[in-house]
Amino acid sequence: VKTIVQPALSGLRFQVCYRLEGDHDEAFGRAEDITLEQTVEFPGDLLPDGDIRRQIVGRIEEFSPFGRVFRAVISYAMETAGGDLVQLLNVVFGNISIKPGVRVEWIDLPEEMLAWFKGPRFGIAGLREKVGVPYRPLLCTALKPMGLGSQTLAEMAYQFALGGVDLIKDDHGINAQPFSPFRERVERCSAAVARANRETGGKCLYLASLAAPAHLVVERAHFVQQAGGGGVVVMPGLVGLDTMRLLAEDDGLALPIMAHPAFQGSLVTCSTTGISHGVIFGMLARLAGADATIFPNYGGRFAFSKKQCEQIVTESRKPLGNLKPVFPAAGGGMTVERLPEMRQVFGNDVIFLIGGGMHRLGPDLKGNARHFKDMVERF
Amino acid sequence: VKTIVQPALSGLRFQVCYRLEGDHDEAFGRAEDITLEQTVEFPGDLLPDGDIRRQIVGRIEEFSPFGRVFRAVISYAMETAGGDLVQLLNVVFGNISIKPGVRVEWIDLPEEMLAWFKGPRFGIAGLREKVGVPYRPLLCTALKPMGLGSQTLAEMAYQFALGGVDLIKDDHGINAQPFSPFRERVERCSAAVARANRETGGKCLYLASLAAPAHLVVERAHFVQQAGGGGVVVMPGLVGLDTMRLLAEDDGLALPIMAHPAFQGSLVTCSTTGISHGVIFGMLARLAGADATIFPNYGGRFAFSKKQCEQIVTESRKPLGNLKPVFPAAGGGMTVERLPEMRQVFGNDVIFLIGGGMHRLGPDLKGNARHFKDMVERF
Repeated sequence: VKTIVQPALSGLRFQVCYRLEGDHDEAFGRAEDITLEQTVEFPGDLLPDGDIRRQIVGRIEEFSPFGRVFRAVISYAMETAGGDLVQLLNVVFGNISIKPGVRVEWIDLPEEMLAWFKGPRFGIAGLREKVGVPYRPLLCTALKPMGLGSQTLAEMAYQFALGGVDLIKDDHGINAQPFSPFRERVERCSAAVARANRETGGKCLYLASLAAPAHLVVERAHFVQQAGGGGVVVMPGLVGLDTMRLLAEDDGLALPIMAHPAFQGSLVTCSTTGISHGVIFGMLARLAGADATIFPNYGGRFAFSKKQCEQIVTESRKPLGNLKPVFPAAGGGMTVERLPEMRQVFGNDVIFLIGGGMHRLGPDLKGNARHFKDMVERF
Repeated sequence: VKTIVQPALSGLRFQVCYRLEGDHDEAFGRAEDITLEQTVEFPGDLLPDGDIRRQIVGRIEEFSPFGRVFRAVISYAMETAGGDLVQLLNVVFGNISIKPGVRVEWIDLPEEMLAWFKGPRFGIAGLREKVGVPYRPLLCTALKPMGLGSQTLAEMAYQFALGGVDLIKDDHGINAQPFSPFRERVERCSAAVARANRETGGKCLYLASLAAPAHLVVERAHFVQQAGGGGVVVMPGLVGLDTMRLLAEDDGLALPIMAHPAFQGSLVTCSTTGISHGVIFGMLARLAGADATIFPNYGGRFAFSKKQCEQIVTESRKPLGNLKPVFPAAGGGMTVERLPEMRQVFGNDVIFLIGGGMHRLGPDLKGNARHFKDMVERF
């Protein structure tokens, strides 16, 4: 095995903090294993001394107890990540995802690596400008339930838009089923929201769901734009995180992207494996160009804790190179009563996603939307 | 909410078996929740009677204790899955992945849904024909460690091919780093293996790794084919499962696909959430067109059990509509001593993936390969 790496490495490194199960020796063994498994994937005792061992193999920068477990900060040469999001994730958690007891807590990239990413096209400020809402939280709802026809969904969208909702999205499960074919639904819902906007003078956006086959994601996004849609909902867990980035960087598109967490749950819900909530729904959504990132709010029908939600919000909005902040969107069983508390916890730069709750107040959807809107306008 | 679904549903349904944590009432509550969460995502008490409640909402077909937990078989209308793999996965596990205590054990699709998928282009028989090995297990190795230059990797491939290895793949972490740029490496390794084949009369295949950005996956696959490469390694956890399907169905390609489990670990390693090993590495890899599916063998450096590996092998090879069987490829710390046991457990239709172990016998890679080859030829 040759030991000189060419071209010579820059010396720039990125850091990943891993949570490690086990007692001191076991956890340290996991850390040492990660340094090999995530890079050379080669038996440590067979690796000769030289550039590969000294620069390519991950390096344990810190190792310390954290409650009843341990944390290790491991650094990797920038070049191992190749220059793109896919290989970066491969180094961070590719093979080690298959071994139990290892969880990614945070990732720290040097400016030179952050520069690989364009990030959100609009971000918080851009999305605010699009909907004409400079300060207060945004109000978002979803068209549902699955099984309704396109015309019924469009009528629903019209009522919501008249009631003052800022963002109206397809429910994440409504995609291209026979009861509301994709193009038909997008055309009708876009037209319905445009009609409401003309009547109210508002700037409500309709966002179409893009849980589409790999060869249709980009094509459907372009169709949404041509049909006058206001944005797209992308599920990175289903279509791939880098596919979202591709849409965000598409020069022919100028649509806001809302990331939805479908199928990503197993990455976060098990405390001993996976990746932290803040990294998945905050940092990675942002690197991959989401303008808004949906997460299930604490106290709703999902099981995220308040602290996990706060981490998501922090990662969504903190300074990160030249990347715009991404709008955190709290959903999943939100009710009108919780809005004041939510605003207290998340501040104004948040989207309140009220789905089923919008129907609980009765059949007058415009009136229900108006009721929620009054609540967020008081902020 | 209108209650008539149009066009009328076919009545065809698919079934998903979920493992549910909790006592009887808690587990049954989870099952009822799944029927709503995975379809209408609408409060059950607000859903009027009619087609949507009776046909779109999931249906609990069976509910029974399973050891200390429970299992529910839930059926869904075929139409909810829209006609593609992405929306099928969305219904099976989209939102419910975010709730703890729910794991997918198996999925049963009617023939009408299996017909949506072309599956593996080559499968076991086709891959055997390509490498000219009708009966025995295949021998596969990986080019590594990361950091080596293209010429060194190509020389390594040449030695392995001379030694009689059937399949030589890039290590999954070697993609497009500066030390071995993608096109340069693919050209040199393809040429090196072709040269060895000319000398030996063998049919060794070189498979290039495709952990590529979303806009480059298809392009790089075509480049591999043009450069004389023998196949591609695809990581569905990183590039998206449906992207693999896209490659498998690409009319301009005729390359075997080997699926690699990087980044998919969190879907399987936590027993209370995620999806079973057999479904992820067997059934879904097959629906998405993998010709071979890599999994970490039991007793190696990963933590899969013998039973989990057997499930993967079963799901890879059992009858499934018109879909060809996919070659199970056992790797992850395999040694020469374990080959006889492996053959006993997995039979002949298996690929033995020997990576680091190939270097443990000393610096003569051709000799080491020959040693492993002798072992599998004895079968």
